[in-house]
Amino acid sequence: MTTIPSDYFYNLVQNRQSDRAYDTRPVEKDKVLKILEAARLAPSAFNAQPWRFIVVDEPVLKNKLADAAASRVLGINHFTKQAPVHIVIVMEPANLSSNFGSLVKEKTFPLIDIGIAAEHICLAAKAEGLGNCMLGWFDESAVKKLLGIPKSRRVPLIITIGYPATDEIRPKRRKSLDDVVSFNKY
Amino acid sequence: MTTIPSDYFYNLVQNRQSDRAYDTRPVEKDKVLKILEAARLAPSAFNAQPWRFIVVDEPVLKNKLADAAASRVLGINHFTKQAPVHIVIVMEPANLSSNFGSLVKEKTFPLIDIGIAAEHICLAAKAEGLGNCMLGWFDESAVKKLLGIPKSRRVPLIITIGYPATDEIRPKRRKSLDDVVSFNKY
Repeated sequence: MTTIPSDYFYNLVQNRQSDRAYDTRPVEKDKVLKILEAARLAPSAFNAQPWRFIVVDEPVLKNKLADAAASRVLGINHFTKQAPVHIVIVMEPANLSSNFGSLVKEKTFPLIDIGIAAEHICLAAKAEGLGNCMLGWFDESAVKKLLGIPKSRRVPLIITIGYPATDEIRPKRRKSLDDVVSFNKY
Repeated sequence: MTTIPSDYFYNLVQNRQSDRAYDTRPVEKDKVLKILEAARLAPSAFNAQPWRFIVVDEPVLKNKLADAAASRVLGINHFTKQAPVHIVIVMEPANLSSNFGSLVKEKTFPLIDIGIAAEHICLAAKAEGLGNCMLGWFDESAVKKLLGIPKSRRVPLIITIGYPATDEIRPKRRKSLDDVVSFNKY
């Protein structure tokens, strides 16, 4: 295996943050394709790959999508129009093994899978110097209608991508290691 | 932001695979702690951090856990006893915003969050030269009993970690980019 200096990964994790302000620079197409490749290679339960990634970069459509993503009621996600690229993640039907596992073990493996693929997108974007933000709260029906996504599908996440307006990396607010880790018992 | 050569991330994604054979070398404690730090810093919906990571590295207990993880019926996951370290991911109650979001938007945000944190663990482990494998299919009741995890909690994943028995990186079987990506419409 190629030797990978592990510090690069920890830097990447430190630098990934929810970027909610973007500048006007367009995102290079080859960067978008590399990010999508990282998503495509993500692991999934029983290798089901229960996903489809819709890249929205046509400006008028993208602004309509941003309108759907912003919540008038809660006043959140109004920044999204600044991002030149949105990646909409559609949850696709899994394979037989994954469906059987989800049923018997009572956990929705495709949602875990979507989390993995989404984080590949965010980390790859950050590795490319691009800001990004996962959105989970949006008008899913409006998004589906806008992009021709079948009613039967779910859309767990939208990810905004663009050059961040600032280089500032905010300190992360997280529980302490002692609060979230234990050894050999709960 | 520190400049991160993006190729390192893509190499990492390429090299991460489900490793199902480990050699006898123990895993260094400082590597385990760095991996846990990467998990701790993972993003989550509304920053709920709905997780607890139980490191199981005490050999007798770890073998009992491996027995619980192997399925006699399906004949899967019999390799797990080879791995000196297991990380058991417990889904913890989320915060009010996340619970409200999960309810209103009808998607279980904590499962997506767990996917993200789990992949931080796997990528960090690989960055440290360690093999790893996510397990989703195991006897959850037995695992909870063994580790004193409250009955009310769910255990979505266990991750095995150890030095891989081989350096071979298998080609990934994945859908093509055309099969999983589209532009500006479904």
